[in-house]
Amino acid sequence: MTHFDFETELQVRDYECDIQGIVNNANYLHYLEHCRHQFIQKAGIGFAGLHNEGIDAVVIRAEIDYKSSLRPGEEFVVRLKLKKHGHLRIIFDQQIIRKNDNKLIIDAQITTVLTRKGKPVPSQMLVDVINQAGIDVPEV
Amino acid sequence: MTHFDFETELQVRDYECDIQGIVNNANYLHYLEHCRHQFIQKAGIGFAGLHNEGIDAVVIRAEIDYKSSLRPGEEFVVRLKLKKHGHLRIIFDQQIIRKNDNKLIIDAQITTVLTRKGKPVPSQMLVDVINQAGIDVPEV
Amino acid sequence: MTHFDFETELQVRDYECDIQGIVNNANYLHYLEHCRHQFIQKAGIGFAGLHNEGIDAVVIRAEIDYKSSLRPGEEFVVRLKLKKHGHLRIIFDQQIIRKNDNKLIIDAQITTVLTRKGKPVPSQMLVDVINQAGIDVPEV
Amino acid sequence: MTHFDFETELQVRDYECDIQGIVNNANYLHYLEHCRHQFIQKAGIGFAGLHNEGIDAVVIRAEIDYKSSLRPGEEFVVRLKLKKHGHLRIIFDQQIIRKNDNKLIIDAQITTVLTRKGKPVPSQMLVDVINQAGIDVPEV
Repeated sequence: MTHFDFETELQVRDYECDIQGIVNNANYLHYLEHCRHQFIQKAGIGFAGLHNEGIDAVVIRAEIDYKSSLRPGEEFVVRLKLKKHGHLRIIFDQQIIRKNDNKLIIDAQITTVLTRKGKPVPSQMLVDVINQAGIDVPEV
Repeated sequence: MTHFDFETELQVRDYECDIQGIVNNANYLHYLEHCRHQFIQKAGIGFAGLHNEGIDAVVIRAEIDYKSSLRPGEEFVVRLKLKKHGHLRIIFDQQIIRKNDNKLIIDAQITTVLTRKGKPVPSQMLVDVINQAGIDVPEV
Repeated sequence: MTHFDFETELQVRDYECDIQGIVNNANYLHYLEHCRHQFIQKAGIGFAGLHNEGIDAVVIRAEIDYKSSLRPGEEFVVRLKLKKHGHLRIIFDQQIIRKNDNKLIIDAQITTVLTRKGKPVPSQMLVDVINQAGIDVPEV
Repeated sequence: MTHFDFETELQVRDYECDIQGIVNNANYLHYLEHCRHQFIQKAGIGFAGLHNEGIDAVVIRAEIDYKSSLRPGEEFVVRLKLKKHGHLRIIFDQQIIRKNDNKLIIDAQITTVLTRKGKPVPSQMLVDVINQAGIDVPEV
């Protein structure tokens, strides 16, 4: 079984669902982002805090496989593991799992970089913070 | 130069931007979806109309390259071309281009299927409607 | 001290904040709605379930006083008490309170009606369900 | 007939609608905000620009009457007139009107103040900009 570095539990809110009665496809990106932000917050540095220091964590690529759909009120787990790719990219492997039947809903790979004034900066600064929180960030 | 089958013009709304002062990464999926839905509406059949007939157009995979960011008030074009993959999948190649400098903001490939009661149904029915609107849907 | 009939705890997600670094004013309506929907779900009847039975709970008036703002990551309580106004209206008095300092963030009054095919229907049916869950719905 | 100071035309996007097939009640606040922000942008000063100068325009009270609902694809006009209340408050009277039948969908009154570092500052600075754009801001 795959190991994950962090997970958070959420519940579908009705307004996140569209006419089809299922969560709108864009909202899963919100769930995935919220999990990543909670993770880096827990590691000791927030997304808003980073921004105030002039550093922005930016998504440069997202690959999302929509395996199934969530419906109003359903509880789910969003989880992630992360890895380093080169000296700029941090890649998050993320999944969304429905709680009542452990069904895989979303399988995603989100690639991020850090930027300062719009220019990429080495990811090592964020990796150091994460390492200090006791989490290994393997290279790929 | 690549040909596109449809395009729509939009403007960034302030509430679509987050703390970083740029459009939140999930909102680009909203822009891409809105373009696809306007397209099928124009072809003669709406997303809501499809749903009322028991057929749901569902995204099964999204690949999004975030090339640059949009800021408050900026005007942009969302465009698409589509192709058929097998008898189930319709793939939309989509781009978001900023108007004032023609900069490529988003390059995306969105794979969709039609479903009835949660089961995939052949895409031909939608392809026929699109063909009748004078748009070719090549196979890949 | 005022009594409330139901409360739920939430945490601000970064994407809910806008350029000002605070929760966008529309998102507080999402929080208030989510609390109401969780409440009626807990009472034994869901918003989606109601819709599938042909009955829609619709907001007809909202009065919202924005007393202060929530910021990224802050935890808060959304709470409600409800009352009956005439045989059509159910009015929800709602508050949003920040957890770390008990500060009142939002004070709101949301008036709702039930509709079937766009026509109002008596609220008694919903009041009965809520009463059966052991909650009194006073008249005003 | 009432005079309005500014109006903008929009179209419902499918993702703005919820399970009931109508625009979710929070999204009308987005429409109203977008109209106000376009107005002050046109008057010569943007919401984001204000924020960068350390001044935030903040909603302190919203009263919204939901008269009817918008559905997918419907075109509508959002309009506003504004007035000054005391030396701090600017009040926007706003309406949303469906285009195809001129039906009143939303009737709202949105009260705003300007703040600098969280403290209210006189609205005169914004009133001056609006006056210079040729629009009168009556006192109430």
